[in-house]
Amino acid sequence: MREDREPSRRIALLLEYEGTRYAGSQFQTNAPTVQSELEAAVTKTTGEQARASFAGRTDAGVHALGQVAAFTTASALPGETLVDALNAWLPRDIAVRAAREVQAGFDPRRQAVRRRYRYVVENRRARPVLGRELCWHLSRPLDVEDMAQAAAALAGEHDFAAFGGPLEHPQTTTVRRVEGFTVASADTRVVFEVVANAFLPHQVRRMVGALVQVGLGKMTAVDYGRLIEGPPSSAGPSAPARGLFLVEVEYPHALFTSGAPAGLDGPAYQ
Amino acid sequence: MREDREPSRRIALLLEYEGTRYAGSQFQTNAPTVQSELEAAVTKTTGEQARASFAGRTDAGVHALGQVAAFTTASALPGETLVDALNAWLPRDIAVRAAREVQAGFDPRRQAVRRRYRYVVENRRARPVLGRELCWHLSRPLDVEDMAQAAAALAGEHDFAAFGGPLEHPQTTTVRRVEGFTVASADTRVVFEVVANAFLPHQVRRMVGALVQVGLGKMTAVDYGRLIEGPPSSAGPSAPARGLFLVEVEYPHALFTSGAPAGLDGPAYQ
Repeated sequence: MREDREPSRRIALLLEYEGTRYAGSQFQTNAPTVQSELEAAVTKTTGEQARASFAGRTDAGVHALGQVAAFTTASALPGETLVDALNAWLPRDIAVRAAREVQAGFDPRRQAVRRRYRYVVENRRARPVLGRELCWHLSRPLDVEDMAQAAAALAGEHDFAAFGGPLEHPQTTTVRRVEGFTVASADTRVVFEVVANAFLPHQVRRMVGALVQVGLGKMTAVDYGRLIEGPPSSAGPSAPARGLFLVEVEYPHALFTSGAPAGLDGPAYQ
Repeated sequence: MREDREPSRRIALLLEYEGTRYAGSQFQTNAPTVQSELEAAVTKTTGEQARASFAGRTDAGVHALGQVAAFTTASALPGETLVDALNAWLPRDIAVRAAREVQAGFDPRRQAVRRRYRYVVENRRARPVLGRELCWHLSRPLDVEDMAQAAAALAGEHDFAAFGGPLEHPQTTTVRRVEGFTVASADTRVVFEVVANAFLPHQVRRMVGALVQVGLGKMTAVDYGRLIEGPPSSAGPSAPARGLFLVEVEYPHALFTSGAPAGLDGPAYQ
């Protein structure tokens, strides 16, 4: 990079993607990832090498409505032009919804104070067709009330190790503060929403996967509440990635205002 | 077919499909259609040649949540088994939501008394990602109130020739009774819903396409109401097929109860 360019700017992006085709959000050498697509689009737009940081690591197949990413650039392109240019380069299953300049040291993961995930189940006999990549199909009827009651037991600050996958840094705490875990249904759709300060790897998918056991009558709400006392990674099974959406990431100061439309009031994926 | 089989039964099906891959609902010799896929699945399920009739002809690329089809069979398979078997044979972008036996002469098109279509626009700068095949993307802001006001003018019994495509049987009437034409928005989604006793070919897409001109400020509500006075096929432009859904077909006696979930309260496509 040339030394005489504009002073560098830190840009935060609000990202939407369909995870079906990707090995997750984070860069991998031999597999397509959201990060590698985004970095390629930034390079094509700005002519610069770019490293993008993400607020949350989403697994292979997991979708996002409001993932937040950040990168540093010397480009002086205005926000809307940047959005249009990135969207022109990005593949059809990734889009930038908004961009804004943030302070130089902005770290989308460390500075996030709250994440919201949504999990969508289509609960009907016939397999779903429209939006079939964006839900988990369960043909046996789920008891939504039982699940809602059980879910409430996981709210609060707990050690969620039982619901976590292998930790990247095993010395770190597995205590998380779940601020809400709700279940609601409309027609054949069942929507799980969970908000926490942060999540362990696989936590949402294990929370939902075990909750479905309650919904099927295979586990009581009391037993569900006790899963949290089990050894690390013992709770489950894990719900499949295709039904999971990272809906919103919150910061101490509002970053994007358009990130988190409602679950049952809007389409599942929006 | 053997003469000594069970007496034949007439079966009505509630169909959901994504139209993206198809040249429309009706059989064509050299192109994939919903009808040919359905007939092939019936043949695989029953071992019989089958002819399926449809309630409404949907164009290439148009989707359905509640298309109704019917066929005659000597098979004695119970309804739920039939649904499961057909869904096992049908491709992923077509599913049977329900099946029921109807009277021998049931004609899903002629006996229908009311059809409901939905048209979905995603009105935002960034192109949509999740559900991108199930909407029309318009990045310039639409005035929903202006469109809603203009739409109301088309309700009632009128000669809709100006909004129709070429007629299959030119001697037939082009008078239709539109019972409701509404426009509503939630977040970035704009949903048009229109109910009528029947529709001319292309009518919904022309009604929506011209209405978008009102939403963009390019046509007044008064001029929109006057389009109906124009010569055949003069109103438009036609909105693209990808945003259109056949939501429900009604009969004098309720045929299926699960066909028509709400537009803004559920996902666009459900």
